[in-house]
Amino acid sequence: MDRVVLDYKKPSKELIEAFREISVASAHECMDRKNYLGMSIRPFYPGMKLCGPALTCQCQPLDNLTMHAAMHIGKPGDVMVVTFGGNPNQGPFGDCCTTLAKAKGFEGVVLDTGVRDGATAKDMGLPIFCCGHSVTGTIKKEFGTVNNPISIGGQIVKPGDIILGDDDGVVVIPLEIAEDILKKAQKRQADEIIIRERFRNGEDAWGMGNYSEYCKKLGLNLPI
Amino acid sequence: MDRVVLDYKKPSKELIEAFREISVASAHECMDRKNYLGMSIRPFYPGMKLCGPALTCQCQPLDNLTMHAAMHIGKPGDVMVVTFGGNPNQGPFGDCCTTLAKAKGFEGVVLDTGVRDGATAKDMGLPIFCCGHSVTGTIKKEFGTVNNPISIGGQIVKPGDIILGDDDGVVVIPLEIAEDILKKAQKRQADEIIIRERFRNGEDAWGMGNYSEYCKKLGLNLPI
Amino acid sequence: MDRVVLDYKKPSKELIEAFREISVASAHECMDRKNYLGMSIRPFYPGMKLCGPALTCQCQPLDNLTMHAAMHIGKPGDVMVVTFGGNPNQGPFGDCCTTLAKAKGFEGVVLDTGVRDGATAKDMGLPIFCCGHSVTGTIKKEFGTVNNPISIGGQIVKPGDIILGDDDGVVVIPLEIAEDILKKAQKRQADEIIIRERFRNGEDAWGMGNYSEYCKKLGLNLPI
Amino acid sequence: MDRVVLDYKKPSKELIEAFREISVASAHECMDRKNYLGMSIRPFYPGMKLCGPALTCQCQPLDNLTMHAAMHIGKPGDVMVVTFGGNPNQGPFGDCCTTLAKAKGFEGVVLDTGVRDGATAKDMGLPIFCCGHSVTGTIKKEFGTVNNPISIGGQIVKPGDIILGDDDGVVVIPLEIAEDILKKAQKRQADEIIIRERFRNGEDAWGMGNYSEYCKKLGLNLPI
Amino acid sequence: MDRVVLDYKKPSKELIEAFREISVASAHECMDRKNYLGMSIRPFYPGMKLCGPALTCQCQPLDNLTMHAAMHIGKPGDVMVVTFGGNPNQGPFGDCCTTLAKAKGFEGVVLDTGVRDGATAKDMGLPIFCCGHSVTGTIKKEFGTVNNPISIGGQIVKPGDIILGDDDGVVVIPLEIAEDILKKAQKRQADEIIIRERFRNGEDAWGMGNYSEYCKKLGLNLPI
Amino acid sequence: MDRVVLDYKKPSKELIEAFREISVASAHECMDRKNYLGMSIRPFYPGMKLCGPALTCQCQPLDNLTMHAAMHIGKPGDVMVVTFGGNPNQGPFGDCCTTLAKAKGFEGVVLDTGVRDGATAKDMGLPIFCCGHSVTGTIKKEFGTVNNPISIGGQIVKPGDIILGDDDGVVVIPLEIAEDILKKAQKRQADEIIIRERFRNGEDAWGMGNYSEYCKKLGLNLPI
Repeated sequence: MDRVVLDYKKPSKELIEAFREISVASAHECMDRKNYLGMSIRPFYPGMKLCGPALTCQCQPLDNLTMHAAMHIGKPGDVMVVTFGGNPNQGPFGDCCTTLAKAKGFEGVVLDTGVRDGATAKDMGLPIFCCGHSVTGTIKKEFGTVNNPISIGGQIVKPGDIILGDDDGVVVIPLEIAEDILKKAQKRQADEIIIRERFRNGEDAWGMGNYSEYCKKLGLNLPI
Repeated sequence: MDRVVLDYKKPSKELIEAFREISVASAHECMDRKNYLGMSIRPFYPGMKLCGPALTCQCQPLDNLTMHAAMHIGKPGDVMVVTFGGNPNQGPFGDCCTTLAKAKGFEGVVLDTGVRDGATAKDMGLPIFCCGHSVTGTIKKEFGTVNNPISIGGQIVKPGDIILGDDDGVVVIPLEIAEDILKKAQKRQADEIIIRERFRNGEDAWGMGNYSEYCKKLGLNLPI
Repeated sequence: MDRVVLDYKKPSKELIEAFREISVASAHECMDRKNYLGMSIRPFYPGMKLCGPALTCQCQPLDNLTMHAAMHIGKPGDVMVVTFGGNPNQGPFGDCCTTLAKAKGFEGVVLDTGVRDGATAKDMGLPIFCCGHSVTGTIKKEFGTVNNPISIGGQIVKPGDIILGDDDGVVVIPLEIAEDILKKAQKRQADEIIIRERFRNGEDAWGMGNYSEYCKKLGLNLPI
Repeated sequence: MDRVVLDYKKPSKELIEAFREISVASAHECMDRKNYLGMSIRPFYPGMKLCGPALTCQCQPLDNLTMHAAMHIGKPGDVMVVTFGGNPNQGPFGDCCTTLAKAKGFEGVVLDTGVRDGATAKDMGLPIFCCGHSVTGTIKKEFGTVNNPISIGGQIVKPGDIILGDDDGVVVIPLEIAEDILKKAQKRQADEIIIRERFRNGEDAWGMGNYSEYCKKLGLNLPI
Repeated sequence: MDRVVLDYKKPSKELIEAFREISVASAHECMDRKNYLGMSIRPFYPGMKLCGPALTCQCQPLDNLTMHAAMHIGKPGDVMVVTFGGNPNQGPFGDCCTTLAKAKGFEGVVLDTGVRDGATAKDMGLPIFCCGHSVTGTIKKEFGTVNNPISIGGQIVKPGDIILGDDDGVVVIPLEIAEDILKKAQKRQADEIIIRERFRNGEDAWGMGNYSEYCKKLGLNLPI
Repeated sequence: MDRVVLDYKKPSKELIEAFREISVASAHECMDRKNYLGMSIRPFYPGMKLCGPALTCQCQPLDNLTMHAAMHIGKPGDVMVVTFGGNPNQGPFGDCCTTLAKAKGFEGVVLDTGVRDGATAKDMGLPIFCCGHSVTGTIKKEFGTVNNPISIGGQIVKPGDIILGDDDGVVVIPLEIAEDILKKAQKRQADEIIIRERFRNGEDAWGMGNYSEYCKKLGLNLPI
């Protein structure tokens, strides 16, 4: 195991651009309802969105030394995804880091902690997905890993996986299945436009799914 | 016990309209500080309000089949109130459901889970009260109950009870006491206008309540 | 122990004004990363800020009698800091209290509970830092303490300590070290302006801190 | 609504005795996996069991006045089920109450709070199911309801419903379906004896359920 | 402020011995239901008890350097009370520390974190009150304070205050009121023996408190 | 990605036997304080221990179909490690599963959910590490993965990694570093015997670490 991996496969720009049209919910559904980073990792401000390849980082709790190695090697368009071990009351990322991430051209940042200096992040237009606000400061003492697979939000994220974030939170799309998921999600989103149109015209899911019949088969005697 | 109840008593339109002027806090106070669905069930976006009769629904966790039965039989003005067993990390309601609820003319929706596709909900103007954002998808396999009494947010909600929601959350007003509570709440809100006016003119609650005297009776020797 | 203390040392107006330029994050860092009231005590609406001397109050849970004694004796510019024992699902402060706090000229309010009638608080421009929305009502039966040291948000707050709040939450600066912390925080904030400028010009924290060298000394063989 | 209901239907002694052989898990399964009071309400000490008709009680938070009315009217064999609004950090029941419950001949007690003086409870052999230990004291000021339906542990409990508790927690069996559930649960428990025997003899659930075939139908190409 | 205070007032041995007869619940009640460290700080194994003067210590999160200073200066009979900032997932105290605490003759230890190597603690008979088991390791880098007032479990603990622990958790008795609280608690415990005797003889709290009459005065028309 | 992997590298029996002498705390320390599955995954009964190669399994929440595939292919000595997505209120494993796991010769089981029928598990001597008791039942509908890397307890577990459990919880030792960690942990445990002996003879960590000197270098003027 190398502590810092510089060379790994990344998605094409075309793939990233295509995923920008996919919602977190759609991607999640098309991966058998998996790979969602949960309710705790939220856009720092409503309306934030991000889509890009993961630059992964594991830090010791309350120690952001490793994160600065990740920022050092990250490339424009990267989504830096950092775990600090799951305790949200840490503030390892603030206005200086926001400035640096913008200077590096990062697409955005995902952390399983709080973030400080929120106003700056909003003003500078850097999409940050995190567990809210915390100022609890960090030290720089121990080194974890950069671009190794990490566990964050109950999911495994590998370097180069596609990270998608919107108002519903964050989903990871493993790179090896990304092309397939893209197609499924595009189809699903197209289908949903039609469903919504049918709903507006008076149909509903109960009728369209023929669930009265289904429940009868379950042995239920419903008045509908 | 019928799994789906179609016939139940509902409040008059006049009663609903009158309750629109009542805040969640006032209604709660006038019911002996009861019937509040707690801090976890919140407006999906600030400023959302709702008032209407409950259309109740109990689903299995991670299974929204029954909710679609409720949507099938619900009437304009209804507030659909759905419990999925208390785990907030479920996203059984998204943009398709929002479209359908608007098409059905529902007043709004209350769930003890997360909701997905939040932007749509906001754009379409459907008041949703829930536990935040979650995309965790659901299946359609098992049938619970519609318009039976349910337990949600630590309270019992019966079909036809009045559901009131504002920035402070949600309160249920049992239909059998609704007329009485309305009167009490109207009086309370009128009284509070006077209290606030007296506060602006230099009085305070300590003085108005004569609490120095009260504390003296408790045996406390306060310097105020 | 006196239940109500009327006489205690307060910071000068100059000191308060100077602290208005300091962020919660900076103050926290300059106190060895201490005295932060945690992630749960948040501005009631984004953008709220406060800075002033603490008027401390300990209430019994679900009983706001003592808070009204604190409001009775508080002075313009005070930040009323009230603990109700740590259960957030209490709504001891609402629109009447907001009106009163404004009439008294308070700088703001900090509570370890929820607050009700949020819209009023926002409209009236009173900075409130709390644990969100709750309407759960309170009684007036038992008396705690006013202007004794209290434990809130995992920190000790003494009357006259400086309370600083912004989008990141709340920090308490003990009065006896406030002058010293002010100087350190001013220097830190000046230094950070330079750091951010260097970041914009292509440097990063990894390089500036010479962390490649540091990690080599730890025995790590990194490719950076 | 009567605040105190003295007259309600209760299960027969035979029914109660028969349910003593049923586990909480079996009863839950036979009610479509419903009516479980959740992971937070636990036996105060391992090994505690209870089975009896519910004597329901709703108290104000931190106020146990109503509980003493319930204890006043309760009968031998009753399981007193009390909600205090869901905050576990309350200790409304201690060694005096344990003594009283034993003197009254209660079968046991279920609360959604902590309990104090645990050693006594254990020594006196009163089955208590609760949220752990808390000494946080209560007052006697306001009156709730006795033998009205209550919401506790996310479920509705009505007076006379059967309450079953073992090491897995508590389940409520609505009286109107109790005979039916008993039969189903007895059958299920008999079936499970056979299943376990088959497992000991080398079969497993995958094979017995023919799940390789099932997965093939789902379109999965598994090597098993 | 001195970081390490060596000289502070301690309770007499007689006072400590007398408090050994007092339960956590009784002490809490006699301090107006205050000073309880909450449900999260529990005996590491059931049956553990402690009573002694507080040796207070504030550590940085995940850093137990300061705790070793406290252990260095602590005296036989001391109860070391350490806060690590409130995140329970830390294991700063294990079998080596247990050995040391026993060698120093400490009465026991209270921490707002987990503890590791639980079996040792049990075997060696050191009463530890903490938030459960955690192995999450700590470093030794920064120095906090020893024998300054600390905030732990939502309470203020000063050096020399009496710490009482039993199966119900931990309560702090401020030294300046300890004599008074002792007398009240002794009386309360004597009274409770009589109450329990009356309960065993057929009386109950509802009748002894004349609560039917009380409720009539509240305007309630109860059938009891 | 294969949904079910049958062929993967496993540790030797000698390595497993050697790790039986290592505590969870020691292993965690020797992996730079990493790979601990956290405070929530606990031995189902105190005193349970396990050590063996991971048989990994990812199930859909509330659906244990995949777990039965894992049980079908598991070998004697395996530790089955199953994630159900992180919600502890699920009871996918009960007395039938315990019987089956024993019949298969499993070393033990680790789940991020509750377990039901606890008494059986204890009686049959199967080490189970889980999040407590839950009876909430599961279905068998969807298939996840067996022997793919999974995320559980905030860590990545790969098939064949060594799983170690004792009273402090569970740690995962990646197979590729297991030999190295074993040596370090053996040395650490030997060293700790000496440290404890020195503690018993009057030394302490403060003195042995020369921390007075260290703090002087930090600029602290301590009286010790």
